[in-house]
Amino acid sequence: MEKIPILKMGPFLLVTIQVDLYDRLALSLEADLVQMVKKTAAKGVLIDISAVSIVDSFMGRIFGNIAGMCKILDAETVVVGMQPAVAITLIELGLPLTGVHTALDVEKGMKLLTSKVDIDIESDDDLDDDHNTI
Amino acid sequence: MEKIPILKMGPFLLVTIQVDLYDRLALSLEADLVQMVKKTAAKGVLIDISAVSIVDSFMGRIFGNIAGMCKILDAETVVVGMQPAVAITLIELGLPLTGVHTALDVEKGMKLLTSKVDIDIESDDDLDDDHNTI
Repeated sequence: MEKIPILKMGPFLLVTIQVDLYDRLALSLEADLVQMVKKTAAKGVLIDISAVSIVDSFMGRIFGNIAGMCKILDAETVVVGMQPAVAITLIELGLPLTGVHTALDVEKGMKLLTSKVDIDIESDDDLDDDHNTI
Repeated sequence: MEKIPILKMGPFLLVTIQVDLYDRLALSLEADLVQMVKKTAAKGVLIDISAVSIVDSFMGRIFGNIAGMCKILDAETVVVGMQPAVAITLIELGLPLTGVHTALDVEKGMKLLTSKVDIDIESDDDLDDDHNTI
């Protein structure tokens, strides 16, 4: 089993990481995710790392990369279920996960994504209003 | 990473199987799932096996067991994302997954679960109506 499945749930994609993200797998996950975001026009990506207990600088960078790529494709990324030990390690490694949103669990992450997408839609409306007034 | 994470999504639980379900892991998944169904009062369990390409009779039995246990605890089980090769193997092994609902992907599985829970609620209402008329 070489691929991490990406599940489509409404306007969002859900990825659960259960195996060690060695280099090749992480890069293929990156590529698959970006493809899926484009294919499904997803507005958000949820990455569940509750099963991840060991993290290294490579994995920390991967989350940042995925968030950056998805952002360009107009999708927000939320990492959920991080174990306290992983948070400690990430900060000690000097990887504060800038640009990545986090939430305690999938439900809270889903709420966060929904609110972000709502805000985006609202600000788009505001933009339209501005255009109308000009 | 020894545990398969169980994600709570509203009234349902979601499990993505990405690793080979060897005996001990499968039994601990069974136990964890039943505990979570009780703890969260979940109405349904979604098991995504899109990453599973090889299945044996043990794994086939595990799905049946989980569905049976969840049913007793008043939760429906839907297995989603089965690869055609897995379906072929299961039938050839003489395991038609009786008692287990299946759907093509997570979204369809979620819809199936929602409809099943709705029907349950409706039939409960009917029961109440009957009681009223008697």
